[in-house]
Amino acid sequence: MLPENKRTLKNWQYELHEIIYESGTFKGKLFDVCLLIAICLSVVVVMLDSVPGIHQKYGNLLYSFEWFFTILFTIEYILRLICIRKPMAYAVSSIGIIDLVAIVPTYISFFVVGSQYLLVVRALRLLRIFRIFKLWHFMDESRFLISAIYASLRKISIFMLFVIILTIIIGSLMYLIEGGENGFTSIPQSIYWAVVTITTVGYGDISPATAVGKLLATMLMLCGYAIIAVPTGIVTTEMAFRNRNKLGEKRVCGNCNKEGHEVDAKYCKFCGSEL
Amino acid sequence: MLPENKRTLKNWQYELHEIIYESGTFKGKLFDVCLLIAICLSVVVVMLDSVPGIHQKYGNLLYSFEWFFTILFTIEYILRLICIRKPMAYAVSSIGIIDLVAIVPTYISFFVVGSQYLLVVRALRLLRIFRIFKLWHFMDESRFLISAIYASLRKISIFMLFVIILTIIIGSLMYLIEGGENGFTSIPQSIYWAVVTITTVGYGDISPATAVGKLLATMLMLCGYAIIAVPTGIVTTEMAFRNRNKLGEKRVCGNCNKEGHEVDAKYCKFCGSEL
Amino acid sequence: MLPENKRTLKNWQYELHEIIYESGTFKGKLFDVCLLIAICLSVVVVMLDSVPGIHQKYGNLLYSFEWFFTILFTIEYILRLICIRKPMAYAVSSIGIIDLVAIVPTYISFFVVGSQYLLVVRALRLLRIFRIFKLWHFMDESRFLISAIYASLRKISIFMLFVIILTIIIGSLMYLIEGGENGFTSIPQSIYWAVVTITTVGYGDISPATAVGKLLATMLMLCGYAIIAVPTGIVTTEMAFRNRNKLGEKRVCGNCNKEGHEVDAKYCKFCGSEL
Amino acid sequence: MLPENKRTLKNWQYELHEIIYESGTFKGKLFDVCLLIAICLSVVVVMLDSVPGIHQKYGNLLYSFEWFFTILFTIEYILRLICIRKPMAYAVSSIGIIDLVAIVPTYISFFVVGSQYLLVVRALRLLRIFRIFKLWHFMDESRFLISAIYASLRKISIFMLFVIILTIIIGSLMYLIEGGENGFTSIPQSIYWAVVTITTVGYGDISPATAVGKLLATMLMLCGYAIIAVPTGIVTTEMAFRNRNKLGEKRVCGNCNKEGHEVDAKYCKFCGSEL
Repeated sequence: MLPENKRTLKNWQYELHEIIYESGTFKGKLFDVCLLIAICLSVVVVMLDSVPGIHQKYGNLLYSFEWFFTILFTIEYILRLICIRKPMAYAVSSIGIIDLVAIVPTYISFFVVGSQYLLVVRALRLLRIFRIFKLWHFMDESRFLISAIYASLRKISIFMLFVIILTIIIGSLMYLIEGGENGFTSIPQSIYWAVVTITTVGYGDISPATAVGKLLATMLMLCGYAIIAVPTGIVTTEMAFRNRNKLGEKRVCGNCNKEGHEVDAKYCKFCGSEL
Repeated sequence: MLPENKRTLKNWQYELHEIIYESGTFKGKLFDVCLLIAICLSVVVVMLDSVPGIHQKYGNLLYSFEWFFTILFTIEYILRLICIRKPMAYAVSSIGIIDLVAIVPTYISFFVVGSQYLLVVRALRLLRIFRIFKLWHFMDESRFLISAIYASLRKISIFMLFVIILTIIIGSLMYLIEGGENGFTSIPQSIYWAVVTITTVGYGDISPATAVGKLLATMLMLCGYAIIAVPTGIVTTEMAFRNRNKLGEKRVCGNCNKEGHEVDAKYCKFCGSEL
Repeated sequence: MLPENKRTLKNWQYELHEIIYESGTFKGKLFDVCLLIAICLSVVVVMLDSVPGIHQKYGNLLYSFEWFFTILFTIEYILRLICIRKPMAYAVSSIGIIDLVAIVPTYISFFVVGSQYLLVVRALRLLRIFRIFKLWHFMDESRFLISAIYASLRKISIFMLFVIILTIIIGSLMYLIEGGENGFTSIPQSIYWAVVTITTVGYGDISPATAVGKLLATMLMLCGYAIIAVPTGIVTTEMAFRNRNKLGEKRVCGNCNKEGHEVDAKYCKFCGSEL
Repeated sequence: MLPENKRTLKNWQYELHEIIYESGTFKGKLFDVCLLIAICLSVVVVMLDSVPGIHQKYGNLLYSFEWFFTILFTIEYILRLICIRKPMAYAVSSIGIIDLVAIVPTYISFFVVGSQYLLVVRALRLLRIFRIFKLWHFMDESRFLISAIYASLRKISIFMLFVIILTIIIGSLMYLIEGGENGFTSIPQSIYWAVVTITTVGYGDISPATAVGKLLATMLMLCGYAIIAVPTGIVTTEMAFRNRNKLGEKRVCGNCNKEGHEVDAKYCKFCGSEL
């Protein structure tokens, strides 16, 4: 954690880097697999500790495990800082911040006494599962998914805006039609019902009781049934477009070495020479 | 609000027009952002006022806010009429009507005394959020979405007609099978249940109790599961078609007159001549 | 309803045929619209009659309406038989059978006394709404939809078979895990629950109570969430394929006059001459 | 079940092979249809036996049927082993294992006395329905579906990983927000709720009661509504890709070596020479 941002690594640091950051060698792969197992186990420990029956019986044991994993991940975090050329760059990257956030809560629960805060701490600790992302972050499929979702985000946002406005208006109408005695106690509550209905979740904790309310609910459901097609259409179109392009990437121009030609192209679209 | 439909704007009117209707200048952008915030806040005020606990405590404060926003939007509406060349065209446009409808209810609540009517007024006021539409109405993505949905509308209507007929028949059958003692008290009620089921909402306020009723419900659910594919297929096909056209139609080769060149192409992919 | 299957129409029969079967003339259009309104009203009458409160008050009035519409549709059915060249072909066609089934129940309710049977009759009467199909049967969009669904039917059947087998196995497992005390009283009941869950309907009349049952339910839900993609994919692919072909239909070969050439075709694929 | 893995079949074995394994002859088809009916009936018997009312009345009869079908399938299994050239290859194949698993449970229930174990046996017996797969395993459509799903599996797994992580984090947050008194008694329980919500199942056995909890639930629902588009997009793209390839890959022009000719093409659409 030295202040200089770029440093030369010694031999043992380089070896450690190979193990911790890379997964090309056998040791590196072993480290990654062990880390993943440790993360999963630590999440399971937190989950089990929240079950009243198990907490009563094995609370102490689970508490020990919690500390064991926290110390393990702390050592891992320190080693990561030691064996990298730019420790600060890692510390401020999203991966580094998640790594830190995954160990800090247990230490905070040590200093601040108070059960209600401890509970918050447990939930935050679950974020350490995001470290799994590191493993598939570079896989081709995930990049394909992320880029397709990212490209659809703007269109889906507009769609979501429309859905939210629709639920506000329908929710307010239902508040007027049904009223408090049927569970529609306020406009926010009615909007919550409208979202539960349009997304086809349908808990049934609130449901219309009057004839007019049921008619409006029926229309909202049919509407939700039809407009679910919109985000699906957006993402599918984006993916299909990306897929078609991926097919074209295989053709390379012999003159300018650029990729991305379509299947029916005869001449390079960048330099004009025959393909 | 003068009767002549087209008039020449004075200098100050032209400046006001720039601020209120356009968003090219800094002042215009600032006005739009402030207006949006005011609309959101006014909707939140109406929502909070409907929550019994908050209404009791802060009812008077929220009532003041309601009047503050109403007067603000009234001034805005008058300014819009003043600084436009065709005030009547604005007043009768869908945007103008929504602007008016968003301010009128508070004034009506002033003259007509009666809490139950006041409630209706509050819900109508929420329509002012539609003014947000003005901001994204011209964005490329929303136009893409709207045109794709508009093109699918006829096909989706036919599909919806089929779904409605199916729910009427299945609903009537369930009324005969289950009867009033299991919640299926009338055919409209049973149709409501059929819509709740086929759209996969499933409140659970009414659910089949007899063996035959459960068998029919099972078939309806599997049917709903399969036919949700139809609107999705319609919208996706429409979007994919639009996407393909959008990409290819813009560029034409000057040599061979062929279309379908990608956005990053420099040379015609068919004849090799520069685009 | 004469036995000869083909006959020559007299002048008044030909005119009646124009009105009843065709919608090219003003009278024909008027007839179709009136018929549609009458069908909708007759369905509404049946629906309202099933609501206990309305039945008590307006039962006699609704009964009269029922008979009015039945006699109206009987006259229409007889006129259809009279003014067509092949009355038997119409009578045995799916449209003719629906037309008959839509009027017969009221007459049966006249001869057979017994309220429970009367109820069945009411539901069958609703089938008369299928007559609406006649109006849009020839529209381009509905033919597009029907042909796409018909082509997907075989693939969707296989998918449905898989879903049914999955629900049988998961349902049986849940019967063993949860047992009768949690609502899973028998395997058919558990299969009903599995269908309610995999189709994401989720009434909540039966829901898992044990930890293992909840784990299995969670897996089933995630499974249902993923496999809903399959019918959607099938229908979308079918529609997209149909759409692409429709685009190609516009190009006609100058030599052999055949249609159906793709967008990138240079030579006619049927006769080999340049397009 | 002789140890030699490949043997020459005698004449009667060859004839039996034709009937049991092939469906080209009339006898073979008859055997397949009868087997299918027997499997369906045996599954129905198991199902009915689990219904308390029916078990009490017809328990003995159903028990006899159970044994009848078990002996029938045992004979079938032995015949399959006798008339095949590589009996061991069949016995260890997935089809052979399912065939064995479908008969073994009844025999185990014979030796091991104990009603609770008997119940497990019944559920396993249902697996015999998988034998139906043999019939459509070779149909073109099912191969299309399986290959498309198989190709999407990796992308869908990544998506599912993301959904699971999201439900863990949201579930933990809801545990902290709502607490045990509203049904969110532990983190696993809250994760179960999160899955029920994001998959839009929505039983309603657990639903948020606090304002913050409802807000978070609303966001989770809208999220689930949007991301259901992802698996659909993946599968649709995969299917569309497969469909396009299937159509185009079969025919190659002998003159210009180009692919992509339609099924009904007689001449190359690129160079005009006969295909």
